[in-house]
Amino acid sequence: MQFLSDNAAAVHPKVWDALRDADAADSPYDNDALSKRLDEAFSALFGRECAALWVGTGTAANCLALATMADPHGGVICHREAHIETDECGAPGFYLHGAKLLLAEGDGAKLTPANIQAVLDGITRGIHQVPAQAISLTQASEYGLVYRPEELTAIGALARQNGLGLQVDGARFANATAFLGCTPAEAAGPADTLSFGCTKNGGMGGDVIVLFDPGQAELVRRRRKRAGHLQSKGRFIAAQVLTLLEDDLWLANARAANAAAQAIAAKAGERLVYPVEANELFVRLTGDERDALRSRGFAFYDWDDTCCRMVASWDTRLDDAERLAEAISWL
Amino acid sequence: MQFLSDNAAAVHPKVWDALRDADAADSPYDNDALSKRLDEAFSALFGRECAALWVGTGTAANCLALATMADPHGGVICHREAHIETDECGAPGFYLHGAKLLLAEGDGAKLTPANIQAVLDGITRGIHQVPAQAISLTQASEYGLVYRPEELTAIGALARQNGLGLQVDGARFANATAFLGCTPAEAAGPADTLSFGCTKNGGMGGDVIVLFDPGQAELVRRRRKRAGHLQSKGRFIAAQVLTLLEDDLWLANARAANAAAQAIAAKAGERLVYPVEANELFVRLTGDERDALRSRGFAFYDWDDTCCRMVASWDTRLDDAERLAEAISWL
Amino acid sequence: MQFLSDNAAAVHPKVWDALRDADAADSPYDNDALSKRLDEAFSALFGRECAALWVGTGTAANCLALATMADPHGGVICHREAHIETDECGAPGFYLHGAKLLLAEGDGAKLTPANIQAVLDGITRGIHQVPAQAISLTQASEYGLVYRPEELTAIGALARQNGLGLQVDGARFANATAFLGCTPAEAAGPADTLSFGCTKNGGMGGDVIVLFDPGQAELVRRRRKRAGHLQSKGRFIAAQVLTLLEDDLWLANARAANAAAQAIAAKAGERLVYPVEANELFVRLTGDERDALRSRGFAFYDWDDTCCRMVASWDTRLDDAERLAEAISWL
Amino acid sequence: MQFLSDNAAAVHPKVWDALRDADAADSPYDNDALSKRLDEAFSALFGRECAALWVGTGTAANCLALATMADPHGGVICHREAHIETDECGAPGFYLHGAKLLLAEGDGAKLTPANIQAVLDGITRGIHQVPAQAISLTQASEYGLVYRPEELTAIGALARQNGLGLQVDGARFANATAFLGCTPAEAAGPADTLSFGCTKNGGMGGDVIVLFDPGQAELVRRRRKRAGHLQSKGRFIAAQVLTLLEDDLWLANARAANAAAQAIAAKAGERLVYPVEANELFVRLTGDERDALRSRGFAFYDWDDTCCRMVASWDTRLDDAERLAEAISWL
Repeated sequence: MQFLSDNAAAVHPKVWDALRDADAADSPYDNDALSKRLDEAFSALFGRECAALWVGTGTAANCLALATMADPHGGVICHREAHIETDECGAPGFYLHGAKLLLAEGDGAKLTPANIQAVLDGITRGIHQVPAQAISLTQASEYGLVYRPEELTAIGALARQNGLGLQVDGARFANATAFLGCTPAEAAGPADTLSFGCTKNGGMGGDVIVLFDPGQAELVRRRRKRAGHLQSKGRFIAAQVLTLLEDDLWLANARAANAAAQAIAAKAGERLVYPVEANELFVRLTGDERDALRSRGFAFYDWDDTCCRMVASWDTRLDDAERLAEAISWL
Repeated sequence: MQFLSDNAAAVHPKVWDALRDADAADSPYDNDALSKRLDEAFSALFGRECAALWVGTGTAANCLALATMADPHGGVICHREAHIETDECGAPGFYLHGAKLLLAEGDGAKLTPANIQAVLDGITRGIHQVPAQAISLTQASEYGLVYRPEELTAIGALARQNGLGLQVDGARFANATAFLGCTPAEAAGPADTLSFGCTKNGGMGGDVIVLFDPGQAELVRRRRKRAGHLQSKGRFIAAQVLTLLEDDLWLANARAANAAAQAIAAKAGERLVYPVEANELFVRLTGDERDALRSRGFAFYDWDDTCCRMVASWDTRLDDAERLAEAISWL
Repeated sequence: MQFLSDNAAAVHPKVWDALRDADAADSPYDNDALSKRLDEAFSALFGRECAALWVGTGTAANCLALATMADPHGGVICHREAHIETDECGAPGFYLHGAKLLLAEGDGAKLTPANIQAVLDGITRGIHQVPAQAISLTQASEYGLVYRPEELTAIGALARQNGLGLQVDGARFANATAFLGCTPAEAAGPADTLSFGCTKNGGMGGDVIVLFDPGQAELVRRRRKRAGHLQSKGRFIAAQVLTLLEDDLWLANARAANAAAQAIAAKAGERLVYPVEANELFVRLTGDERDALRSRGFAFYDWDDTCCRMVASWDTRLDDAERLAEAISWL
Repeated sequence: MQFLSDNAAAVHPKVWDALRDADAADSPYDNDALSKRLDEAFSALFGRECAALWVGTGTAANCLALATMADPHGGVICHREAHIETDECGAPGFYLHGAKLLLAEGDGAKLTPANIQAVLDGITRGIHQVPAQAISLTQASEYGLVYRPEELTAIGALARQNGLGLQVDGARFANATAFLGCTPAEAAGPADTLSFGCTKNGGMGGDVIVLFDPGQAELVRRRRKRAGHLQSKGRFIAAQVLTLLEDDLWLANARAANAAAQAIAAKAGERLVYPVEANELFVRLTGDERDALRSRGFAFYDWDDTCCRMVASWDTRLDDAERLAEAISWL
């Protein structure tokens, strides 16, 4: 039973149907009928005009979005454990042509205005230091914690005061929104851009760069092509995305993943390093305990010496989650 | 009837089957069972040990391959009308960190040793000029012309003499190989790297970087991640590729496309700007003639004032090709 | 007798005096009293508000200026034989993060509106091609030809119509201005930025980036630091520049160089490939003729098989120039 | 009395003489007689064959040296407070095309093998993380502390074991060597490259990239040109460097600066944050105390709320240093 990650899960049956429906030849790149519907679909979703461009991966989505905010000589404030800092092999340095990530502290990989301000306060040497130009946060965070709308509002206000852009890495934006039970607009807060993840949530492969300033679309479109991310048959990504939006399938999938995570959390008690809000759990386990669980068929990731990461997916069977919960409670 | 390009064609039924078969969750990225078979599959195809890495687009394949050969302060010799020069929005400049494309002449967008030598002869000012480090050619060329094995051998020899890498852009390598009727190894010549295109030949989206020096795989793997091209569910690209290789489906598809192109060529006579070798035709047509063809339902691309480009795909119906041929002959 | 280039000539005595005067410690970087006078000095020179920042080389000046105009995904139109294309080892690709140089034709390495328009007309494939964002021209050109004010006006108008920035490489701007006998403002035309060369005109090493939009100074200041061009003792560059501006020493120096070039030109007649306007001559000479001149002690540069380049400096003795002229006339 | 920094100090009289002697025109760039002597001069200094290339600034020297060791997708381990991390406006990101600085801890801005190892131990996620390729340390450190030869040996051994290059930022290498009283080779340790600073030690402007693997010279030469750091009249930098090396003037200058620093340190007692080894002092002072000193004519830099930085130069008068020492002791 697979709790390693949600990033290799199966494709949702409705997405398969949509992919097959998209097979008939259409215009290449994003000139097909499906891709052309994205702007409207996301404008409806967020209740304000936005531009929406597909890409194949979250790494590309985040980096292309940040390119609208940060100059090569600029800096992006993010958490010390943000995915863009720790897991993308320097992709922001590549896409932003050497711009720096300026690292902030924060519990559970969440930024706070105070911690962001601390980074800003450290920039005192004028031309000799990289200026902050953007903030990037992850909703839900790398430890599965969810920013509340008022937290986003406060960070957004700080961003505005300091002339900084606000990028939201939403690889698990669906899980965060499902947890909050609020509107997508509230869950995104005053973001300038959002990487809307589909790959981990029932898609085959594809994320969406949502630009709340549609005037940035031209820039991102050119950068996407230049980065080799303008797929010839983009209609197949658009098909996935539109299907996930239809009838809020994206939220239904996320709720299923979150529910499975909660089922495990219910029996993990003191072992939990962080409260479980989205679909990730960080569970304190000794080496022997890990072995015991694995011998029963549970797969998960060794985060560090003290804890393991378990992730539930849209297709995680609640049965399996409960079985894992039981197994943990017996340890 | 669609003759605009082969890059938006439908996905081959067998590829669809393979995609569905790959649905079951497996390890992410390229740690799945299918991705792990690529090296072996391509080593068998080319009769020598090579490494094979999937990416989502030909642009990424070409640029990542070139990154094994060219430094940021170096140059890549290519034809003045090479795709990497004219159609990739500066992608090589991005991936190679400002390296220069050094442009060579040549009929039908094909390089010759003499024309490559002319570029080399122009590099006389030492440190003040960008040094050539690689040659990039397209098999088949941007005008659908195919390099013969002995032409590749001659270019390869020049490359070796001058310490240059040799990259082959094989967006339509299948069509070239099918035309030549030789082995894939002969059609690739003494290339150091080959972008093996699948997208235009029955795939959904995916090309393969073939590295004839497997020692380069580590570099390309890191650069691929850094460029946001390490897809989470890479098994879906690997599935496409492996299916196309199975029982030489890739060659069958290419032969079908080439045959459709020949059917049109048979009636286009003097209108052809170049001999038709692969699946592209460049046909001299006046504005009125273009209108006439379009009014009959044929779609194609206005290349310039004098000619149009027509491309046949693996799924072009021979009927439709013959219908277009007829229509041209009546003009 | 040295006619190889003006770029290694001696330093003017008044510049030496100014350097010595600047020895007393002052604030580092460009916070010293001399550097702070540059904006005002150049605003006075050009009769409009501008920002002026020193750098150590013309390469850096050109590239930092272009960085105000061209995005990494953009293009800069320049002549096929522009210094930035042929002699800077790819520096624009480095400073502009992979932006492309879009090459225009033109006699004597001079751009014309028609030739610039031809480049623009070739940009037809939208997102797939690099968009032009700037024009860079050299005053005087690489062949020593000088743009007339009305030529600059016409190019500027075309730039404005197309939303392009206009950069002037003024490595020999002094020689051009001296030749024209007009104001510096007229010789610069409607440029957005000018690289004002001092190194070749009596300086020890130092050029000035003149920004006719002072709002760009912040960007260039940061990029200059980031490129390692913010010298600690910048006062020594500022001292050179201010001295050259004082009492129009820069023009006096240029006039001396131009006069020496004219003295040679007067006897070179039909051998001249281009009319001599600034301080460079391109003289048709056979191999034997070159040997003959060199055996008499004249040093110059073999441009190609048909001609040699001779350059007069501010400190070229008119005697020596006349001696060379004689020697040529005797060939 | 100036204790702000050594980077704006006057030029040594012997350097002035050498500059004047270099005035006569010679070949441009580094083809002049003086520049050609650098390799030999530094090979003699370090007792082994090396290549030595001048540049205008320490920032450029460090970055060009690192370019011999780190790929764009790689990382450089340096101290959290290293100059390249905190004070160069992202220059390493620019020169290394987005490579990352991997930050290590350490007292007094000095690296230790254990702290370097801690960074290496954190690199566990394969392709998803940036691989370390080099170590950069500063001799003397940003807090004026000097690495002992055995410390360098230990770091060098760790570098070799892990296949990492070792770069030494020697902006104040002279002060470190003078303090150690050892050979320059011992003070550089098993470095692969050394930025040999002249600007802060009696020069006008110019540092030297010392390459202990001369085979790297070609790469650095091209990168230097590409970065706009190949000055036309390079002979004026070479002249400074050669003069400083002659009769060990560089060490005499450094000893003078160090002695002035010691004179202050002698009376600063408990106020010193770090032991004074080179020419920098970090002195605990309250706001009132700073005011008091400044009212007496002493200029220095507010490092942070608790301490100030004072720097002695080669030309600091011992009198002035003693006067400052007295003034501190009276506080």
